[in-house]
Amino acid sequence: MTHTSVAAYAAPAPKAPLERITIPRRELGAHDILIDIKFSGICHSDIHTVRAEWGDGGNFPIVPGHEIAGVVAATGSEVTRYQVGDRVGVGCFVDSCRSCENCRAGLEQYCTGELGTVNTYNDTDRHGEITYGGYASHLVVDENYALRIPDALPLDAAAPLLCAGITLYSPLAHWQAGPGKKVAVVGLGGLGHMGVKIAHAMGAEVTVLSQSLRKKDDGLRLGADHYYATSDPATFEALAGTFDLIVNTVSANLDLNAYLGLLRTDGTLVQLGAPENPLPIAPFALIGGRRSFAGSLIGGIAETQEMLDFCAEHGLTADIEVIGADRINEAYERVLASDVRYRFVIDASTI
Amino acid sequence: MTHTSVAAYAAPAPKAPLERITIPRRELGAHDILIDIKFSGICHSDIHTVRAEWGDGGNFPIVPGHEIAGVVAATGSEVTRYQVGDRVGVGCFVDSCRSCENCRAGLEQYCTGELGTVNTYNDTDRHGEITYGGYASHLVVDENYALRIPDALPLDAAAPLLCAGITLYSPLAHWQAGPGKKVAVVGLGGLGHMGVKIAHAMGAEVTVLSQSLRKKDDGLRLGADHYYATSDPATFEALAGTFDLIVNTVSANLDLNAYLGLLRTDGTLVQLGAPENPLPIAPFALIGGRRSFAGSLIGGIAETQEMLDFCAEHGLTADIEVIGADRINEAYERVLASDVRYRFVIDASTI
Repeated sequence: MTHTSVAAYAAPAPKAPLERITIPRRELGAHDILIDIKFSGICHSDIHTVRAEWGDGGNFPIVPGHEIAGVVAATGSEVTRYQVGDRVGVGCFVDSCRSCENCRAGLEQYCTGELGTVNTYNDTDRHGEITYGGYASHLVVDENYALRIPDALPLDAAAPLLCAGITLYSPLAHWQAGPGKKVAVVGLGGLGHMGVKIAHAMGAEVTVLSQSLRKKDDGLRLGADHYYATSDPATFEALAGTFDLIVNTVSANLDLNAYLGLLRTDGTLVQLGAPENPLPIAPFALIGGRRSFAGSLIGGIAETQEMLDFCAEHGLTADIEVIGADRINEAYERVLASDVRYRFVIDASTI
Repeated sequence: MTHTSVAAYAAPAPKAPLERITIPRRELGAHDILIDIKFSGICHSDIHTVRAEWGDGGNFPIVPGHEIAGVVAATGSEVTRYQVGDRVGVGCFVDSCRSCENCRAGLEQYCTGELGTVNTYNDTDRHGEITYGGYASHLVVDENYALRIPDALPLDAAAPLLCAGITLYSPLAHWQAGPGKKVAVVGLGGLGHMGVKIAHAMGAEVTVLSQSLRKKDDGLRLGADHYYATSDPATFEALAGTFDLIVNTVSANLDLNAYLGLLRTDGTLVQLGAPENPLPIAPFALIGGRRSFAGSLIGGIAETQEMLDFCAEHGLTADIEVIGADRINEAYERVLASDVRYRFVIDASTI
């Protein structure tokens, strides 16, 4: 397999600052497309991964980035879905087995085949090669794992939809957020701000549960109907038993039993962030109202396309701050300090 | 309010042996029926309660018993649902607010009204009186909180259906156990053996997950298709990702993350027993397959009647050992030692 070198930003070792390197991209296979990357979002999991905080090691140097928006620059000989010039995106995975029950059902993110879901970076693909993500000038990907970005969406603010957007859209759709439903979004960060926008666009009554009221004006502007501080114990009394669905975007260990108490009978609390340690769940909180504590991971290819089309229809994008690649390390520090409203996006022309 | 004294067995104080006492039963109100109790099952929660292990104190003396089968001996002036001589049962609760959304939806077990679900014993009813359970000669109950026991079911073996039966029927029905579904029942005790029978009758493929293979022959006879020992680590490898639904009847703290790994994508683990301590749940186990950890508590009145009719149609009752009241304390010890196949039922004529 022959390769071309492209520019990228990588973490050379765990916890080391990211720096400019060159990485190989494979020559186009028959079903591959070459993407000229325009923008790449910075996701909290990029930081977890380059800091090796998820305990799964890492294939350093790691090129993070799974919120990728760009334009098709070349197509393989048998590509049918895309043409040069098409606006496309790539999210958290670039391949899967394509034959297991989940892949056939459009749930490629839960692929149970031998290959498994191939993450966009820090994974090994079907050719046995390490995957490198979107902090790069170009990406080669199978046409079946790319998404079409509707013309109504600007590429920079659309990039974060590929992870943050689908991470919220999928559970909100699966657990049927919509008219007549009360939905709480825990945490108003990169994920949470998309949750507010999407749940509101779906027609649900949306409440933000945030540590403080610091971002209340933002929350209401983004589409929330209500905004409560979880640092105030009165919040948990006032809202007891009221929500059909709570989506928790916070990766830190919260007292989830308090949040379970905010669910109505048959309500569900969906965990999206992944704390390092197990979460203590009091069974009475579930048993006393047939409540569920569930998890959800991004979405499949078809559902991600559905989400992009939904966002185009409703005029939804991420609130972003575009930066040059030389500011990635500074941006990481600001993400960790929750000092971004609400997503950093790297201008790939600066890589 | 005037009362009549009836014979009962009660725990006079926490952890004290049960002994014969007399208790007051109210005179029949317009909608009350008087039940001549014939049989009363011994449920593990009876033991938890008289030992004050659930941390909610207790109104001693406590008369346990919420698996009650008997015959109507008298009816209040406006009773329309039952006549003298009818075979009836009473389960875990004897009243609720009747006006909250859950009560109106037939989910009286999750009543959110001010009165709340009134437990059959160790609770306070709408008259401000302590409730006493089924270890007694007679019970007075509102006709709307009694169940009709079909003629096809013997009263002794039907009694445990009022708690053990509905505790399993409700989640199996709610999470749609049936043809094409793989259901695991964790623990083959009083609850678990009813789970195997009911899930099998619903048409599901049933697997018992028990600590050892000691009761394997029983499990297969009761309707299980497969039987695995959870003490064998190979079980968790062999069955990874296979179940649509797992119902956990074990109150002890199990490593639930291992069991969550046995679920398919979108599968649910339902906790029925209530350990005293919170259960540590690893979020990756949920997120990696959109799995749910849920709880379920008995069932509503209409669903309990549906369960009894289902059991009559399919010829299902509990496997029981009938005892005289003088053996209640001995039976408690044997329940704690898991030395009963599968439910003790007190012959109320010996009280």
